[in-house]
Amino acid sequence: SRRYTITLLPGDGIGPEVISVAKNVLELAGSLEGLEFGFKEMLMGGAALDVTGVPLPEETLTIAKQSDAVLLGAIGGYKWDNNEKHMKPETGLLQLRQGLKVFANLRPASVLPQLVDASTLKKEVAEGVDLMVVRELTGGIYFGKPRGFGTNEDGQEIGFNTEVYATYEIDRIARIAFETARKRRGRLCSVDKANVLEASMLWRKRVMAVASEYPDVELTHMYVDNAAMQLVRNPKQFDTIVTNNIFGDILSDEASMITGSIGMLASASLGKEGPGLFEPIHGSAPDIAGQDKANPLATILSAAMLLKYGLGEAKAAQRIETAVLDTLNRGFRTGDIYSAGNKLVGCKEMGKEVLKSV
Amino acid sequence: SRRYTITLLPGDGIGPEVISVAKNVLELAGSLEGLEFGFKEMLMGGAALDVTGVPLPEETLTIAKQSDAVLLGAIGGYKWDNNEKHMKPETGLLQLRQGLKVFANLRPASVLPQLVDASTLKKEVAEGVDLMVVRELTGGIYFGKPRGFGTNEDGQEIGFNTEVYATYEIDRIARIAFETARKRRGRLCSVDKANVLEASMLWRKRVMAVASEYPDVELTHMYVDNAAMQLVRNPKQFDTIVTNNIFGDILSDEASMITGSIGMLASASLGKEGPGLFEPIHGSAPDIAGQDKANPLATILSAAMLLKYGLGEAKAAQRIETAVLDTLNRGFRTGDIYSAGNKLVGCKEMGKEVLKSV
Ligand SMILES: CC(C)[C@H](C(=O)O)[C@@H](O)C(=O)O
Ligand SMILES: CC(C)[C@H](C(=O)O)[C@@H](O)C(=O)O
Repeated sequence: SRRYTITLLPGDGIGPEVISVAKNVLELAGSLEGLEFGFKEMLMGGAALDVTGVPLPEETLTIAKQSDAVLLGAIGGYKWDNNEKHMKPETGLLQLRQGLKVFANLRPASVLPQLVDASTLKKEVAEGVDLMVVRELTGGIYFGKPRGFGTNEDGQEIGFNTEVYATYEIDRIARIAFETARKRRGRLCSVDKANVLEASMLWRKRVMAVASEYPDVELTHMYVDNAAMQLVRNPKQFDTIVTNNIFGDILSDEASMITGSIGMLASASLGKEGPGLFEPIHGSAPDIAGQDKANPLATILSAAMLLKYGLGEAKAAQRIETAVLDTLNRGFRTGDIYSAGNKLVGCKEMGKEVLKSV
Repeated sequence: SRRYTITLLPGDGIGPEVISVAKNVLELAGSLEGLEFGFKEMLMGGAALDVTGVPLPEETLTIAKQSDAVLLGAIGGYKWDNNEKHMKPETGLLQLRQGLKVFANLRPASVLPQLVDASTLKKEVAEGVDLMVVRELTGGIYFGKPRGFGTNEDGQEIGFNTEVYATYEIDRIARIAFETARKRRGRLCSVDKANVLEASMLWRKRVMAVASEYPDVELTHMYVDNAAMQLVRNPKQFDTIVTNNIFGDILSDEASMITGSIGMLASASLGKEGPGLFEPIHGSAPDIAGQDKANPLATILSAAMLLKYGLGEAKAAQRIETAVLDTLNRGFRTGDIYSAGNKLVGCKEMGKEVLKSV
């Protein structure tokens, strides 16, 4: 039997609830495929701030780096919103991404037939949407230097950040995107603002250069403002989207909301080597934390991505994906995806139902 | 009778068609209110590139600056897409905005009851949407320095841009936004990425400081990724949105597509003094250029914004707005907003119908 060490980072808000449920599902699906897991639960985000004074304790990063994969719940909450930058839960997340060197963030957004009514888009626009956003995660304006505060020539206070990409950063994310598109429907749309930004001009140039290695993938380019429109107008036109860190932040959230079931959406962040980071794309939802109302399916599906992309255990991953669909087919729904005629359940009960289907 | 000089910049693609129609409507509505116009038609965008080699000839900017208001059609097209930066139509537009110092871009997006079916959003989500994006237009990453190409420590090529805001830039756009919200439903949502970017932290700090001058306006803050979601989830929650140049580019296009009738949407760009710039938010649509298929209503409504915000001629503006609604009520539709039971017309005929209603 294969053994893996998994770092669990429950984090804040609904994080602990969804992680606890997803852990059980991961264990069962793994054991049925002969996998054994050693779990290490570590502090991260606001939970870490409260105990250690920093959002990503060194010990957490060390353990995470030594493990085979990292499963994160969610971080952040009102309590820490006005903290200074180095004391923000979000800063811990950025440090974790950088520390694990997970430069490729895969965010699938698809509309399940069972949940098509959850979308605010008309049924004929929403049904069949199945896209993947490949977001660059460790570069661009999130990490670019110089950054900070200062004074300009007129003595006015300024705040500034640098959007910067180097050739190798673009090339490696482009390769991941082309590989991803190849395994999907063979179409890649690169999103940039090359009509205005130099960083985007280099982006487009390099994506076009890398394209020559993937003649079987159809490459198109779109400006980010147009992409934000096209996601609303006709999301079905997209297969795989590749874009920079900040545009990916915006567009992947927009795409996820188009499915109407953000409580269902998982993400994987991968590097060249070392453990990947897997997390639901929803936030910590402090308003419903501790009330057993959260939808654990996004975290459960993140555990499936962990198995598939993080450990190469496609069979165990498939078990989880099938179990989630089966549970939906049996009519179980948390509040966020509830519609008349189905059975409303809480976080724990949803977890139990998925376990039955694994 | 009051006399005004208007610079017309037809530009590229469908630009000339929609400008010619809007000019007639502007003239008639004005004359009925005792206004006289002197029009100066100048080269801009690709049209200028082809004749003069630059996208914004000096003469165009000079004439524009001397006039009372500028009405622009649209710029750009496949032909110039691969031009170098200083030879792109888009660069001419950025130079024009900077030259006229129009730092405040007002982009209303509302769903007319007559056109609610044009939205890809469900009727109950789309109907009643009436929001205004106030976008900062002459700062941020569009103009920030340093910018360009270079090499990093490892000898790798890099492309970089600077997102930068100074106190005075934020304060002045915030004031316009608060004034705008005050004249609307009294609610302002400032959109930033203050959990990651220093430029956004200063943005939020200054917007909060300016807020003390407007105790009657309710101010909220939202992260840009969440705003991209909320526009899809429940666009009715928004009244006035204020944001930086690049986020405004993305969110205002998303908001406009949510209405489903982007061929209807106008925009105004205003400075502290001097002529404002008025333009439809749609592009040059090269695929239908010269075919008399374009929807001229966005440009006609831009002419109304020109009267209202640019010249302070609210009555003449009202004439145009009412005429457009009346024309829609009489069932006239261009292809982009056509639905069964209405009368399909081209650009020129739509213009004639609006003239009848003025
Ligand atoms: C919490 C925040 C720093 C983060 C980001 O902007 O990357 C989040 O929005 C996300 O997309 O994972
Ligand atoms: C054409 C382009 C430079 C421009 C922008 O990005 O500002 C356009 O998208 C707009 O929103 O007016």
